[in-house]
Amino acid sequence: MMITLLTDFGLQDIYVGVLKGVIKTINPDVDLIDLTHQISRQNILAARFALMNAVDFFPDNTIHLAIVDPTVGSTRKAIAIAFEKGYLICPDNGICSGLLSKYKAQKVIELTNNKYWLNNNPSSTFHGRDIFAPVAAYLSKGVSLNKLGKEIKPESLVKLNIEPFMIKNQEIIGSIQYVDIYGSLVTNIPAIILHNKSWYVLEGENIIHHYLTYNSVNKGDLLALIGSHGWLEIAVNGDSAKIKLNKQYCDQIRVIIN
Amino acid sequence: MMITLLTDFGLQDIYVGVLKGVIKTINPDVDLIDLTHQISRQNILAARFALMNAVDFFPDNTIHLAIVDPTVGSTRKAIAIAFEKGYLICPDNGICSGLLSKYKAQKVIELTNNKYWLNNNPSSTFHGRDIFAPVAAYLSKGVSLNKLGKEIKPESLVKLNIEPFMIKNQEIIGSIQYVDIYGSLVTNIPAIILHNKSWYVLEGENIIHHYLTYNSVNKGDLLALIGSHGWLEIAVNGDSAKIKLNKQYCDQIRVIIN
Amino acid sequence: MMITLLTDFGLQDIYVGVLKGVIKTINPDVDLIDLTHQISRQNILAARFALMNAVDFFPDNTIHLAIVDPTVGSTRKAIAIAFEKGYLICPDNGICSGLLSKYKAQKVIELTNNKYWLNNNPSSTFHGRDIFAPVAAYLSKGVSLNKLGKEIKPESLVKLNIEPFMIKNQEIIGSIQYVDIYGSLVTNIPAIILHNKSWYVLEGENIIHHYLTYNSVNKGDLLALIGSHGWLEIAVNGDSAKIKLNKQYCDQIRVIIN
Repeated sequence: MMITLLTDFGLQDIYVGVLKGVIKTINPDVDLIDLTHQISRQNILAARFALMNAVDFFPDNTIHLAIVDPTVGSTRKAIAIAFEKGYLICPDNGICSGLLSKYKAQKVIELTNNKYWLNNNPSSTFHGRDIFAPVAAYLSKGVSLNKLGKEIKPESLVKLNIEPFMIKNQEIIGSIQYVDIYGSLVTNIPAIILHNKSWYVLEGENIIHHYLTYNSVNKGDLLALIGSHGWLEIAVNGDSAKIKLNKQYCDQIRVIIN
Repeated sequence: MMITLLTDFGLQDIYVGVLKGVIKTINPDVDLIDLTHQISRQNILAARFALMNAVDFFPDNTIHLAIVDPTVGSTRKAIAIAFEKGYLICPDNGICSGLLSKYKAQKVIELTNNKYWLNNNPSSTFHGRDIFAPVAAYLSKGVSLNKLGKEIKPESLVKLNIEPFMIKNQEIIGSIQYVDIYGSLVTNIPAIILHNKSWYVLEGENIIHHYLTYNSVNKGDLLALIGSHGWLEIAVNGDSAKIKLNKQYCDQIRVIIN
Repeated sequence: MMITLLTDFGLQDIYVGVLKGVIKTINPDVDLIDLTHQISRQNILAARFALMNAVDFFPDNTIHLAIVDPTVGSTRKAIAIAFEKGYLICPDNGICSGLLSKYKAQKVIELTNNKYWLNNNPSSTFHGRDIFAPVAAYLSKGVSLNKLGKEIKPESLVKLNIEPFMIKNQEIIGSIQYVDIYGSLVTNIPAIILHNKSWYVLEGENIIHHYLTYNSVNKGDLLALIGSHGWLEIAVNGDSAKIKLNKQYCDQIRVIIN
């Protein structure tokens, strides 16, 4: 069995190591794979995107542990979701909403059974160690989902309000759903909409043309392309589109079909 | 068997990868878990804190390899320590002193037997690769501690001079023993001292109130809380207390019981 | 079997996690070790140095996956190389040239057999996921090198043009082949050339003396030493020689034998 880990804990402190120690103490045989621990602090949108695009590439029945949890210690729920490809264990803050736009939730459990927690009295600031990690470990050992708490309705889960893209005549209005480490701007416009069409991005008065690879333009120049996750992306060869265009999450992007 | 790794090597160079290659060449079956490799350069205080708080969360008999070694190549000793929960392999520079404030050293060995080193002629700058990693690997394979060198007295080990906290009437004077990646200031005042008491932090003329979670105050505001490792901590919701208060390791913190 | 991973992907995005998911889906039993994912962006010289110095420390038959691939999607070849210690899978852009200065290429295969790719239609920007990772996974499962594509001549591979060091009377002219995370400048002058000799580095009008360890000089002072990988290195105790001397990759370094 495999557990992946996604957090915004960074790698300087021992938080990630401690999650792994807790899991391995319960299930020494589980395989641990880091998805990323450098989601920018409390950025649920970035975590949503990362999970949504990663799960397809892991073995069936993989357990994904995703902890970006700005409201830890409040009344937000802790949940486990079963879906076709595996399981997601996370706070109920919308982090799951990208994954659930691709996969149906087969079952959702609120993690209320403290028998599967690290102890009966979890800290108010580190549910990753005290609740999420031990629950993932027990699930990987074969404890059934139903034992972890009580079933709740998928419709009750917190949703992140991502504006869907719109098509209007020859124009598509989308928005930026992720900014990667290189400063490339990943939109919410999927490749399939643009398949076999001729198109460009209109940014103010400027046209950003469509190419196949980053190095199709000169160093420092802008381009639009279909990124490896299958979304329209605006990038700069060898530099940051985020800085060059001064754009951020949720900013609007206009695409013209010609 | 499991070996954890803690260093200040960072993740840019191949140093950490090479440690793992050396260990896996000797014992392919050992499980390797990164505690952190981003201890700030030569910061033995940070490494001391990280080790002290991490070991409880790992399986019994885990071997902890901790290499923050500013005086590598000098006459400082290389040591292995057996304690109730497992083993610590490290330079004798005080890095073990937090762990040994919680656990008694059952046996301390100076690593003098070069039969268990990478070769007879270690480099003068990378004992991690040439001495510490191979010794950890052989220990994980079942080589007994006694074979690794000669026994020395626990009292002979280098101690880090951390000022203990003081209680005087209604005041506790402590100090900062760790600064985490978020800039939160972790003091050396343990939760147990404050249990069931009403208290606040006095910082110059200003009062910093006690809350349960980071998001109990507005973004950018200061708070005091009991952090997940069980120490009084000063933080800013969504920002850095270190920068806001201009504080560093070993700076004094005053707590008032009311 | 073990696969090591070296990339310039960084650890913020899910790219590295996805590589591992793809590999583990094909071969769940393989052991994955990160060499580094923080090669500076598109720096083939740094990747060349890292690989060259790392491979000696891994078990025989280790598969090294190295992806720094600025011309992904162009006509550059994807290759697998068998050498005495194991295998290297990488783009044909010179990344292998350090390793091949130490080890003879026993066989080189151009990866043309899409039966061992993730799918028949790889993306134009992420051959790591779509070609290199699955090929490494199949090789680790026992698929023979010959099945992965067609054999090509080692002499046909792209070479990186690293100026070799020169000895002239009492002077050695070398160059910087790597800058590590501390800002230490690693030259291409091997320790063996300086063995049993008295020498110093001449930097403009200034002499940089030879010591055994970083802490042999005061904090902030320059020194020359033989680094742990066996190359002459210029460093500053506790600081960056790169910044202090304003040096970069390929800059010239003069050594005087006296």
